[in-house]
Formats: sequence, C-alpha cells, structure tokens
Amino acid sequence: MVDGHKAFGWAAKDKSGVLSPFHFSRRENGENDVTVKILFCGVCHSDLHTIKNHWGISRYPIVPGHEIVGIATKVGKNVTKFKEGDRVGVGVIIGSCQSCESCNQDLENYCSKLVFTYNSRSSDGTRNQGGYSDVIVVDHRFVLRFPDGLPSDAGAPLLCAGITVYSPMKYYGMTEDSGKHLGVSGLGGLGHIAVKIGKAFGLRVTVISRSSEKEREAIDRLGADAFLVTTDSQKMKDAVGTMDFIMDTVSAEHSLLPLFSLLNVNGKLVMLGLPEKPLELPIFPLVSGRKMVGGSQIGGMKETQEMLEFCAKHNIVSDIELIKMSDINSAMDRLARSDVRYRFVIDVANSLSPA
Amino acid sequence: MVDGHKAFGWAAKDKSGVLSPFHFSRRENGENDVTVKILFCGVCHSDLHTIKNHWGISRYPIVPGHEIVGIATKVGKNVTKFKEGDRVGVGVIIGSCQSCESCNQDLENYCSKLVFTYNSRSSDGTRNQGGYSDVIVVDHRFVLRFPDGLPSDAGAPLLCAGITVYSPMKYYGMTEDSGKHLGVSGLGGLGHIAVKIGKAFGLRVTVISRSSEKEREAIDRLGADAFLVTTDSQKMKDAVGTMDFIMDTVSAEHSLLPLFSLLNVNGKLVMLGLPEKPLELPIFPLVSGRKMVGGSQIGGMKETQEMLEFCAKHNIVSDIELIKMSDINSAMDRLARSDVRYRFVIDVANSLSPA
Repeated sequence: MVDGHKAFGWAAKDKSGVLSPFHFSRRENGENDVTVKILFCGVCHSDLHTIKNHWGISRYPIVPGHEIVGIATKVGKNVTKFKEGDRVGVGVIIGSCQSCESCNQDLENYCSKLVFTYNSRSSDGTRNQGGYSDVIVVDHRFVLRFPDGLPSDAGAPLLCAGITVYSPMKYYGMTEDSGKHLGVSGLGGLGHIAVKIGKAFGLRVTVISRSSEKEREAIDRLGADAFLVTTDSQKMKDAVGTMDFIMDTVSAEHSLLPLFSLLNVNGKLVMLGLPEKPLELPIFPLVSGRKMVGGSQIGGMKETQEMLEFCAKHNIVSDIELIKMSDINSAMDRLARSDVRYRFVIDVANSLSPA
Repeated sequence: MVDGHKAFGWAAKDKSGVLSPFHFSRRENGENDVTVKILFCGVCHSDLHTIKNHWGISRYPIVPGHEIVGIATKVGKNVTKFKEGDRVGVGVIIGSCQSCESCNQDLENYCSKLVFTYNSRSSDGTRNQGGYSDVIVVDHRFVLRFPDGLPSDAGAPLLCAGITVYSPMKYYGMTEDSGKHLGVSGLGGLGHIAVKIGKAFGLRVTVISRSSEKEREAIDRLGADAFLVTTDSQKMKDAVGTMDFIMDTVSAEHSLLPLFSLLNVNGKLVMLGLPEKPLELPIFPLVSGRKMVGGSQIGGMKETQEMLEFCAKHNIVSDIELIKMSDINSAMDRLARSDVRYRFVIDVANSLSPA
C-alpha cells in the first residue's frame, strides 16, 4: 500500500466476521479527492454478508461500512463542489470508469468497472476500506452533499438503504401515477425506508411480513396503510391481485409464488435482497398475468443526491439504534437475527479510539 | 350439451394424447355469433401439452387447435363487422368478461374469466372444442378479419405464435428505438416468427440455439443477423452484455443464467415458453445489472388484429409443413422432438372426412 494518511478502524480478519481494532493507511489527498473525517456510519446487511464471506468474494482484512456521514477536512485542487468543513456523505461506491454507456447516463452503479467502498481494489492496486474508521479519502465525484435538513446519524442509512429503495421506485414506474399499491416484503433496514419513501411518493403501502409482530409500529410509526401477515391464509387470499408493485427486501431463501399472486396484471416484483442461492421462478404467473421480476442495485451519484434532497424535504430518515464502535460485534449478532429497529448506526467520532 | 350444429373433428380421449375421429356438436349460431367453416388449423405446442395433460388441467375428450382460419358461413343479427363469405381467424381465446379492468384496456387475454378456445367451458356450461374440426361458432368479438394479403395456410399460425411474439415486443419496449439487439432463444414455432417480426420492427436479431444445425437457414431464409450456439463458450463469452432483449421460447427446463449474462444493463428477458416446473432465478445478475424477467400471454383482440395487418403489410407468414388430418398423430410425435420447420398446419377442409 502507498504510504499516506494513518487510519484506524475496526476490521474483520477472517470469515468468523469478528471485528477488532485495525491500523491501516489511506492514500494522501489527491487533486480530485475529498478527505472526510467520519462522524457516523450505518451498519448495512451487506456488511454482515461481506465480513462472513457469505458471497464468497471477501478478501481480508476488511473494514466494512458504506453509509458514511462526515466532515470534509481537505479538498484537492480540482474540487469545486466541496470545501473544508462541509458535511458530506459517502455511500456504496467510490469509483467507476467515467466513460462507458452506464457512466454517461449517470448510472455509475451499473458500470462494469465500478469500485465498491470496501472489499474492493482501487486502480492503483490498493485495497479499499470502509467507514467503520476515522477517516476516508474519496474522489469528489463519489462524494455527496449532505443536505442541511438531514441529521447526520439517522440520515446516514439513506446513503445505501435509502437510494436502494428510491431508485427502483422511479425506474419501475411506481411514481408515475399516484395512488398505486406497493407491497413491501420484509420490514428491516430497507423495508422501513421503503415504506416512508413510498408514502412520500403518494403510494398506498402495505407491509408484507411473516408475523404480526411489527404491525402496530408499521402503521402507527412508519406510516404504512396496511399490514399483511403471510401466514394468514384468508387475508392472503383476499389480497390476491391487489398490488401493482412489490419490493422484496428479504435476503433469506423464500418462495416468490405468494408474492406473484398478490400482484395484479402487469404487476412488478423488484428484488432488493440478495439471497445466497437462486430462488425458484414460477413461470405460469409471469406469463398468464404479464408480471415481471426485476432487480436494482443502489443508484447513480446524481440520483443519490436527488434522493437525499427528497428525504430532507419530506423529513425522511432511518429509525436507528445508535451504538458505540465497541458494540459492533454484538450488533452484528443481533442484525443476523433481524433484531434491530431498524438500522444500527455507529457513533464513530465519539466512540472510536485506538486501543 | 345443448343441441346444435353437428360437428366433427379429431379428439384426444385420454392422456396418451392419441387423436382420433370424434363427433360432437356446436351451439347454434346466436345473435352475437359467427359460424366459421374451418379451412386450416395450425398445430401449436400448447396443443401437444394439453392432449398429454402436461399441465394437469386437461378434461377429455379434447379437440385441440387455436390457430384457425376459415370462412364465415353465418352471422348473428348483432354482428356488423363480418358477413357470410368473409375470411376470418380465430385464435387462442373466444371469451372474456368484457367488463374488468383488463377487458376495458383491450387486454382480454389477461381477463381472469377469459375463455380458451378449447379445454375450457363456456358460460352456458358446455365444453369448448378447438379447430381440428369442420366448424366452430364464436362470439364475433373474438373473431378476427383475416387480411387479404395473408395466405390462409401459412397465415394461420400468426393467430397464436404471431401474437405471442408481437405483443411482448411492443409491451416491453423493443419497438421504441430501432436498432436494439434482440436475442431469440429457441428456433421453433414461436422463435422463427419472432425473428421475422423482430426484423420487421427494425431490431438486430440473433438466434440463440443449442446447436448450429439451423444456422444457415436462420440467416439465409428467416433473415436473422447472427446465430449464437450456446455450447460455443468463446462466442458466448464474446456476446456477454450485448443484448437489449431476449425472448425465451424454450419450453424444456433450462438455465436462465447464460441468458442473463448475454443481456446488457437494463436488459429484459421475456419468457414465452411454459416449462412444467419452476426455473432457477439467479438474483445477482438481476440486481447488479438492473435486469428483469417478464412474461407475456398471447395478446388482446385489438392487438391481434393489428398484428395481422402488420404481418400482411410486411409479408410475414409462418414457415409451415402442410399435413392431412390423418397425419396428426405422427406430426405430434415429430413436434415433441422439435422436428418441424417450423409449424405444422392441418389442411382441414381438404382432409377431414367422417370415418
């Protein structure tokens, strides 16, 4: 690794996924870079998948974290959009080729050379490390202005969870006519923000869940219009063909057939979770109802900025549990059991101190 | 069954699927009906699935056939669109509720009460029988004008195979910008018409096939731009990310992963075949490339009429092998082995005679 900034964070050293203090270095601030002192970092389910090598692509040591809010402490000479002292965000990606068809359409998130914020390699060959750390140096094209109205802690998860649900709502046509009916399957980090953003877009939102445990809070606190428990066969039957869209945020293996049956003609199922194994695709409902299932991965930089402004305007933030850096391993255990309402956020600046 | 017309055709009596002569009756011509003397009837893969009860929904005896071209011999008093002597077509559906949201949008094909041409029941309780027969009586709203330019024999398969590929080309946006790249997976009854209609819409069309057997005829006779053999790993690799759309016409169980890899960002895979079991849906390519997989089922009556006019204008017909009614059982055996280029059509009027 090129000598540079000293940096300090918590890293997983192997697939046990246990995080522990880790000294490393960041590159020096270059002419296109913004150096960011990290204040808060959200804990995404992808962090958990990666530190435990669930997807088979992990290279240790790994400092996870890609929902980063901080303060710009230094900007390179080509950087005009940011100045020292600005509050900024860094999300899931920190690089792309800047010249392919996807990049030219502000879809850096689909560039075949995109660089993820951690567990990736930069063009100079160094391994990138994420936001469970004190400082990060990022090309200004992948740094976001963090709007005044958004709190740094509860706003952090918007940088991954927020854009992950916002982008497909626009792409798959959910926002074109108001009053369409959206089902949100799974009420976790992604799902609870999907409810809030869906409501802000004027959608009718029904949460689809395995148990009624979260029913009251989904309606009273998150603003969902209805709550559908998949084990209630009568209510599932009554709901057949009533939904225009479903966002499926469930990462565990599950059957798509009940979700397809909830969709009406031309209904769209959007997969946002990343199950480790392929799911079964039933063909008959696809064909007989002209239904479709599509995916979506975060969003481009321009759309991510737009999403942040949208959330600031509509007072949308994540419901969070603020934790200390030293709480991270037990938080990961709880996350693995979906025992969090609804996102852990690490108070990095106030709790990360060298051992 | 209500007494009515005497009718004669060939029916399957059990799941052996063997077809043999069968006397039955049709309803009398009602005030909304067109009575059609059948000239030709195409042999669709669905006919084969149904007579052998592959989908578990067959009720015997079954006279199959839903690619019917004939002459109107009687019209009811409310029928203004047709007169005796007109050449007409009857396709896959002969009824729908006429009042639901789908019907109101000319999407009778997605009406939950749609009535298929055979192996179905009409509102009066009688079992419907298809076009491997001498005569059929159909509500005029489900009868099509057969354009002058189209031959009755080679035009017949358009009534199912033609609309089945035409409708999704329009719905999934393949015809919006010319020059998009369409892959057609499987070169059978549906696939060979997809090549022709795709070319007429200005698409670049590549046939995707397990073997190179049909390469020359796909390019020289059907007009495909290219031919990709899935077992040629180097060419498959070169073709990764090059297609905007793929129409998958394969009914056998198969892997979708290679097809997804051929699609570019935002690429769309449209399922038209009906495998008996669910296929495996890989989630990563869906998410990382914002790809989707959708279905489509024939088309509405208005769009079917539009498709017939389009095919007449562009001289598009099916490549057929014309057979006698008595050849049907051996034709079904050959169809089961995909040994037909590319559609059997029964010369009903000249070969169906009571035993």
